Amino acid sequence: MSQIYDDAQKMIKEIIGDNMPRHAVEEALKKHSFKGNVHLVAIGKAAWTMAEAASDFLGEKLVQGIIVTKYEHAQGELPRIDICEAGHPVSDENTIAATQKCIELAQSLTADDELLFLVSGGGSALFEKPAEGVTLDDIKDVTNQLLASGADIVEMNMVRKRFSSVKAGRFAKLAEPAHVFAIILSDVLGDRLDSIASGPAVPDHSTVEDAAKVVEKYNLKLTDLQRKYLLEETPKEVCNVETVITGSVRTLCESAARVAKTLGYTPVVLTTTMNCEASEAGRLLAAIAADTHAGRNSFKKPCAIIAGGETVVTLKGKGKGGRNQEIALAGAKGIAGLEDTLIFSLGSDGTDGPTNAAGGITCGKTIGKMREKGLDTDKILSDNNAYHGLQAIDGLIITGPTGTNVNDVTVILCK
Amino acid sequence: MSQIYDDAQKMIKEIIGDNMPRHAVEEALKKHSFKGNVHLVAIGKAAWTMAEAASDFLGEKLVQGIIVTKYEHAQGELPRIDICEAGHPVSDENTIAATQKCIELAQSLTADDELLFLVSGGGSALFEKPAEGVTLDDIKDVTNQLLASGADIVEMNMVRKRFSSVKAGRFAKLAEPAHVFAIILSDVLGDRLDSIASGPAVPDHSTVEDAAKVVEKYNLKLTDLQRKYLLEETPKEVCNVETVITGSVRTLCESAARVAKTLGYTPVVLTTTMNCEASEAGRLLAAIAADTHAGRNSFKKPCAIIAGGETVVTLKGKGKGGRNQEIALAGAKGIAGLEDTLIFSLGSDGTDGPTNAAGGITCGKTIGKMREKGLDTDKILSDNNAYHGLQAIDGLIITGPTGTNVNDVTVILCK
Repeated sequence: MSQIYDDAQKMIKEIIGDNMPRHAVEEALKKHSFKGNVHLVAIGKAAWTMAEAASDFLGEKLVQGIIVTKYEHAQGELPRIDICEAGHPVSDENTIAATQKCIELAQSLTADDELLFLVSGGGSALFEKPAEGVTLDDIKDVTNQLLASGADIVEMNMVRKRFSSVKAGRFAKLAEPAHVFAIILSDVLGDRLDSIASGPAVPDHSTVEDAAKVVEKYNLKLTDLQRKYLLEETPKEVCNVETVITGSVRTLCESAARVAKTLGYTPVVLTTTMNCEASEAGRLLAAIAADTHAGRNSFKKPCAIIAGGETVVTLKGKGKGGRNQEIALAGAKGIAGLEDTLIFSLGSDGTDGPTNAAGGITCGKTIGKMREKGLDTDKILSDNNAYHGLQAIDGLIITGPTGTNVNDVTVILCK
Repeated sequence: MSQIYDDAQKMIKEIIGDNMPRHAVEEALKKHSFKGNVHLVAIGKAAWTMAEAASDFLGEKLVQGIIVTKYEHAQGELPRIDICEAGHPVSDENTIAATQKCIELAQSLTADDELLFLVSGGGSALFEKPAEGVTLDDIKDVTNQLLASGADIVEMNMVRKRFSSVKAGRFAKLAEPAHVFAIILSDVLGDRLDSIASGPAVPDHSTVEDAAKVVEKYNLKLTDLQRKYLLEETPKEVCNVETVITGSVRTLCESAARVAKTLGYTPVVLTTTMNCEASEAGRLLAAIAADTHAGRNSFKKPCAIIAGGETVVTLKGKGKGGRNQEIALAGAKGIAGLEDTLIFSLGSDGTDGPTNAAGGITCGKTIGKMREKGLDTDKILSDNNAYHGLQAIDGLIITGPTGTNVNDVTVILCK
């Protein structure tokens, strides 16, 4: 195994380590000094791991807590913490019951208390209690009308969150006069706080007028009660909250940059919001890699060029793969034959697409190896079969499920 | 018009000015000192403009010359220069007659002479004389067999150039003992000298064995004479040639960087070989733009991020557009709403796709303007109708045919 492959393997291990919820929560807690008794609410798919880290860190200071996570995501009892599991991606009866418990906890707090609010991806579905008189079915019905009409996600949320008693900053309001310290593990590109878990502790920037326009534009059918809630303004100021985004695709990229530097590569972060077609991203990044190798661009070797985000795969074939595997394999062609040039692409959750791989890793020798095995890279890509292509040449990254989810990162190493 | 738009317009004008063949040829000639009488052979679509520049610069020093260019590409008489026009992209009788004249000129040269060889895109078809006994139809037949079999361009050239009496370094050999000074205006990404006009003055790196393997791999049917030529080795050393690439997508990017700097933007050249799908390139570059605007990557404002190359468009719709227009329009979505952020993409020849526009220019306001006009950007892109979309919001770059062809450049300006 060559030096550059060794370096890549080290980077992969450290990048994931840096971005585990435990590490992220600890780092955030270290920088915060709690003034009173600490109460905990943890929501989302990483709620249990985040809560465990907080519990270990805070010890007796943590007086009580509630976890709301997806079925089978809790990993055991935690002292003084009530663990609730509920439906994801579709909310159910348990969602409402668990959220009700969180509301009661928030409402019971005084100015001597502090609420530690741990938020991770999946929170939109897992943390919900419809406004008085509205049902989950009502919200589902509006969602379906919006989906069918072609509304985008921003328009959709503008209407939907008005029917919730916890979203759009309302949960933080319920905790007043207590202070809320929110630690967020983000799975949303660009870290839009009002999008992560629909922002229970974030002021809402959309107005009654904005929401009414969407209802009119798509000719939505609402009940009288829904029309009443539509006209109630959401909190525009939420003064009792301090928010720290402690894990996100940005920290994923920062980790990649940090580790690259320790290994002697000058890091260049191109983007943290890459959202185009995976294979085309691979092609463009490979062109940048080849030009870096040849000294035809602004980057000087040795360097690590880093792009974070969440690309998409438009399925054309019936093969097996994932977006990170497509980036790595599509990129291989553009760096074919080049020495000391490597591309790896990694899903931080360890499961890229419906596969057991976290992503793919390719270098200047990859295309030659594919040819030796009688494999046609173009055909494999058009079949969306990157998994089997990479498997044949030892190009899969296998980490197992990591327990975090802060999107993906692609790294070009060029020595 | 905003400052950033003004800056973009200035950049476009200067980038094209810098890359006109006249300027490029003059720059190269200034740096060269000719030792004897200068004889000229100019081939390709820009042959006339390049020859005119040389004629003006050299004056009486230029004792004779031949131009071989595409029909209707010569723009008038030039002193002591024989102007020949021929078929492109398909060679014809005039190709062979004109090339024969060039061969005779080359063979007549002595050690006291110097051959100025001006090469531009289109030279592969315009400059050809099949080897003794081989016909243009023979070469066409092999080309068609290779195309049908799925061979790539490298494999295709490996076989084809063996049937030529001027390609793969042979023309330079004919000029011995005279010295050859070659000035090349490149339209090939990565400036592979043996690919530009099939390299008449460049040693060939492929061997008889390589070519034989391709013939065997695709089971090509060759005549006995062709088999004989297949076994003749091409020149592996060409010692009488000095080559200067004076115009190429690299100089296009260098110009963009130079002008950006004079306008106060720090230039970053990402790549000069971008060759992925145009709209996806637009999306990825827009993500880089948005992150630069927000301070989420390694680039500090004000900066100009530059990507040169030749992207592709996979046609899905029946609209009107070109690859540069697609890059600019697809990029608009990713920078929607951002102040002082702009993307332009430019075909240096002034004709992007089958349109009268050179490319497109978009900014943070583009998507809003499209909406006001009732235009759906996603639908326009899936119809490959960027021309009409950009036209509606004044986003086309119109330069007219420029007289040069050194591929495309995309620039992000971020203040």
